Amino acid sequence: MPVNAVGREIPREIDGRKLIPFGGAYARGPEGKLHAPKIPPLIKPGESKVLPSLDDAIEKAGIADGMTLSFHHHFRDGDMLVNMVLERLAKKGIKDLKMAHIALFPVHEPLVKYIADGTITSTEGSLNGPTGRAISMGKMKGLATLRSHGGRVRAVKAGEIEIDVNFIAAPTADTYGNCNGFWGKSPCGPLSYAMIDAEHADKVIAVTDNLVPYPALPFSIPQTHVDYVTTVEKIGIPEKIVSGTTQITRSPARLKIARLAIQLIKDAGYIKDGMSFQAGAGGVSLAATKFLGDMMRKEGVKGSFAMGGTTRYVTDLLKEGLIKTIFDAQLFDLYALESLRNNPDHVEVSSEMYADIHTKGAIVNRVDVSFLGATEIDIDFNVNVNTHSDGWLLHGTGGHQDVAAGSDFTMILAPSFRGRIPVITDRVTTVTTPGESIDAIVTERGIAINPRREDILDRLHGSPLPIMPIESLLKKVQKITGAPEKPEFEDRIVAVIEYRDGTVIDVLRQKKMR
Amino acid sequence: MPVNAVGREIPREIDGRKLIPFGGAYARGPEGKLHAPKIPPLIKPGESKVLPSLDDAIEKAGIADGMTLSFHHHFRDGDMLVNMVLERLAKKGIKDLKMAHIALFPVHEPLVKYIADGTITSTEGSLNGPTGRAISMGKMKGLATLRSHGGRVRAVKAGEIEIDVNFIAAPTADTYGNCNGFWGKSPCGPLSYAMIDAEHADKVIAVTDNLVPYPALPFSIPQTHVDYVTTVEKIGIPEKIVSGTTQITRSPARLKIARLAIQLIKDAGYIKDGMSFQAGAGGVSLAATKFLGDMMRKEGVKGSFAMGGTTRYVTDLLKEGLIKTIFDAQLFDLYALESLRNNPDHVEVSSEMYADIHTKGAIVNRVDVSFLGATEIDIDFNVNVNTHSDGWLLHGTGGHQDVAAGSDFTMILAPSFRGRIPVITDRVTTVTTPGESIDAIVTERGIAINPRREDILDRLHGSPLPIMPIESLLKKVQKITGAPEKPEFEDRIVAVIEYRDGTVIDVLRQKKMR
Repeated sequence: MPVNAVGREIPREIDGRKLIPFGGAYARGPEGKLHAPKIPPLIKPGESKVLPSLDDAIEKAGIADGMTLSFHHHFRDGDMLVNMVLERLAKKGIKDLKMAHIALFPVHEPLVKYIADGTITSTEGSLNGPTGRAISMGKMKGLATLRSHGGRVRAVKAGEIEIDVNFIAAPTADTYGNCNGFWGKSPCGPLSYAMIDAEHADKVIAVTDNLVPYPALPFSIPQTHVDYVTTVEKIGIPEKIVSGTTQITRSPARLKIARLAIQLIKDAGYIKDGMSFQAGAGGVSLAATKFLGDMMRKEGVKGSFAMGGTTRYVTDLLKEGLIKTIFDAQLFDLYALESLRNNPDHVEVSSEMYADIHTKGAIVNRVDVSFLGATEIDIDFNVNVNTHSDGWLLHGTGGHQDVAAGSDFTMILAPSFRGRIPVITDRVTTVTTPGESIDAIVTERGIAINPRREDILDRLHGSPLPIMPIESLLKKVQKITGAPEKPEFEDRIVAVIEYRDGTVIDVLRQKKMR
Repeated sequence: MPVNAVGREIPREIDGRKLIPFGGAYARGPEGKLHAPKIPPLIKPGESKVLPSLDDAIEKAGIADGMTLSFHHHFRDGDMLVNMVLERLAKKGIKDLKMAHIALFPVHEPLVKYIADGTITSTEGSLNGPTGRAISMGKMKGLATLRSHGGRVRAVKAGEIEIDVNFIAAPTADTYGNCNGFWGKSPCGPLSYAMIDAEHADKVIAVTDNLVPYPALPFSIPQTHVDYVTTVEKIGIPEKIVSGTTQITRSPARLKIARLAIQLIKDAGYIKDGMSFQAGAGGVSLAATKFLGDMMRKEGVKGSFAMGGTTRYVTDLLKEGLIKTIFDAQLFDLYALESLRNNPDHVEVSSEMYADIHTKGAIVNRVDVSFLGATEIDIDFNVNVNTHSDGWLLHGTGGHQDVAAGSDFTMILAPSFRGRIPVITDRVTTVTTPGESIDAIVTERGIAINPRREDILDRLHGSPLPIMPIESLLKKVQKITGAPEKPEFEDRIVAVIEYRDGTVIDVLRQKKMR
C-alpha cells in the first residue's frame, strides 16, 4: 500500500473510488475544471415557490433512493431540520441516501438508526458524537468521508460531491427564496456554509420558521439559487449553537496555556499593527482571545481582522477598535449576532472565501496567527482532531487543515494530557492536519516549536518561555501518564480523512470491540 | 431563411456560428449544464497579487492574439480603463481580440481605429455611439453580438462567451483583490456587472486608483476571484457616469407622457401596497419616478422595492419610506451613492440576480411595473432600442428585454416622434424586445394597450385616459411626420441581436452608404 507524506498507508482504492495519497500541503496542483451545475428549469414571472409543507417540498424535489442530500450546520447541536427531514424520508422507505451535511452533532443521534437500517449508506460531512461512534463501529454500509470546511467546498465545486437536494434551515426567508440567518425567532447569524451547496445543488429547499414578504435582506442565499420555500414550526434552537461553554475557562492549567500562547506570539514578533488572527470558541480559545486583546491594548497595537467562530470576546475587540474587521462564517452567541446585524465591519463570508484552496486566495491565507485545538499531537507535529486516542471517530475536521495551512503562525493550544490520556504522543491515532502546517504546540508543561520554523526559533532566542523540543515534552507527559494503550482496529476502512486539496491524509478502520 | 417568432429572417448560421431563431419570450427551455471555469492555479499564503503597473499586469496575464477581454461599464461615458488597456495592446501589436465589454460609450471612440485595423475583430457587448456606427459601416472583420444585461450573464455562464482576461475598474481595491465601487476618489457605486465576469474569467485584473490595506469592505468582487491588483493614476470620472441629463425633463410633451404613465398604472390597478417598479435615468423616467412617488403618497401606498438605474429620485422614495428596498446594479448620481453607502435597505445586486433568465428567478420577475424607452415601436408592439430609424447601430440593449419579460406591466414611455422622425412605425428597423413583452405604449398623443392584455383593457374600461388602438396612434403620427424613409442595407450581416435566452431576435446588416 502506498505511504503518503505523513507516513500513513493509503489504499489505491476503496469500493471503486480511487484515492490520491496526500503529498504535502501545497503539493497537488489544480487540474481541470470546476463542476458545472445544471441550468435550472425556467421559472416564469408569477410562479410561486412557496409550498404548504415540508412534505410537499420533499415530494416536489423528487427525493429518491441513492440521492445526495445536503444540510448546513449553523445551528450545531440546536439543529432541528436534519432529523425532521430524515424521519420523513425513512418513513417513506427511501434508502441508500448519501448525507452531504456539513456537520452532525449529538442532537442527530436519531440518524444512528437510519445509518444502521440502510436509509443512509454514506456520509460526506463531519461527525461529532453518536453518528461518528456508530460509523466507528462499522454500522454504515459505505464510507464516511471527512473533509475540512475548505475541502468540502472544493469537493462540491469539483463535482466530487454532487448534491441532488440541498436543505437550508433559514431563520428568515422571503416568498421568493432569499434567505438569511440574521432575523426571525431562530437566528443563527451567517449562512456561510450553505452558500456553495445552494449554488451547486440541483434542487434547493429553504425551510423557515419566519417567512417574510419579498424581499428579505440580506440575501445571504439569493433567490437565484432557491427552488422552493416552505415553513415549519421551528427550525432550530439558537441557544444550543454552543453546546459547551461560552465562558472563559477557569482551569488554572488552561488559563496558563492561553497566557503562554499570547506571550509566545509576542516574543515571536506577531504583535504588531495590521496583525490578524483566527480564534475558536472553546474555553481556552476564549481566554486566548481575551489575553490577546489585553496584549494589543498594552502594546498600543491595532489589528486588521479576526476570522473564525465569532464570540463576544472577538466582538468586543472590534467594538473597541483593536481590530477593524470580523469575517464571520459561524457565530456562537447573541452578542456577536447583534454585532453582525449592526456593525458594517462585521461581515458574513462564505466558507469558500474563508477556506477553499481552489480559489485565488482564501481568507485563511491572510491570517497571521491562529489558535487551534487537538485531541492528539505527535512528535512530527501531526495533529489529530477527528478521533480520540481510543480510536473512536468523534469529531469533524472543521477549518483545522485550512487555517493551519493558511496562517503564518499556527499554534495548537492543548493540555498535555486529559484525564490521564496523553495529548502529546509518539504517533497520532489519525492524522487530520500535517505537521508541516503546525508551528508551535503550547501546553501547560511547555512549548514546542516546529524545527522547520528556524526563523521563529531565532526570534525566540533568549525568551523566558518554557520552550523545549517536542521529544522532551513527550517524555515529561509520559512520565505522568505512562505510555498510552493503543486502540485496536479491524481491517475494514470506515472513514477516509481527506486533506483540503482532495488527497487522502489518513484512513480510519473499524474499531475492534472487546 | 427561417423566420423567427417576430417575423424576422434569421440565417441558420453566420461564419460557422449556428443561430437559433427566437421562438417567444419563454419558448426555449434550458438545456445542459453551465460553463465550468478552470480551477485556478494555487495561490500560497504570502504570495503578493500587487503588480507595479498596468503594463506588468497585461504581461503577467499573458494577453495574446485572439483572446477575449472583458470590462464592466459602471463609469459609462466616464470610463478611462478600456482606452488605457486597448492602447497598450494595440501598441504591442496584438490582433484579433474579442471585446466582451458590457457597454461602450462615446468616450471609447479611440476603439474605432482598433476595430478598423484588426486589433479588435468582434464584440460581445453594447455599443453606444461611435463604435456602433463604425460597425454599422462594416468596419469590423467579425460580428458584433448584442445582448441584454441578463442575456450577457447567461452567455458567460453558458460558456458562449469565454473570457480570457477580465479587467475591473475598481474604485477601491485591497492588496489581495477585494474590490468595491463605494469608496475612493472615483467611486461608481455597485460593481454588479463585473461580478459574473470575475467568476468565470481565467485571469482577473483589478485596476484601481485607491489601493487600500487588506481587507477592503464591502468585497463586491471578492479576493477569491482576483489574480492581480495594480494601480493607475485614475480609472474613471464619476461625474460623467451620467452623460445626459440628471434633471427631470422640462419638455411639456415629455412631462405629459410621464403624467399619463402614472395615471395609467393607477387606473390599471397597480398602485397598491407592496408594489414594485423599475425606472431608468432618462429625463422622462425621472419625471415618472417623481410622479409615481406623488401618486403613492396621495394614495397612502407603501411599495416593496425599486430596481434599476438608481437616481436621487428613487433614493428619495426609499428615504421617505415609500419603498422599503432599492436593488442597485448601476447608479447615476452621488446622492444615490450616499444612500448605497449608508442605507442597509439600498443594496448592490449582481446583474445575474437582476436579470438572468437562467437562474431560479431573477429580480425582474418580481417587478410589477416598468418604464422603458424606445427608438422605435411598431404595430406589433415590437420595440427597437438598438438602431435608429436610419439604420445606424447606436445603442445597447441594456436590461430592456429582461425587464420587459419579467415585469407584470411593461410600459414604453416615448414621444410619438423625435425631430420629425416617427417613433411609432409599421415595422421597427430592428427588433430588440418582442411585442409580447410590451403591455402599453404611452406617448404624448395617446396610449396604446397591447390587445393581449385583455385584463388591463377591462380594468381601464371607463378610464378618461386617451387610450386607442396602436394603428390609430400610428395614423396620428404619420399624419404629422409623413411615412418615414426606410434605410437601405447591404447584404452583409454586421450584428446579431440576441434575445435574453440566447436565441436570435434580429440581425442587423451593413448600412448602405449613399
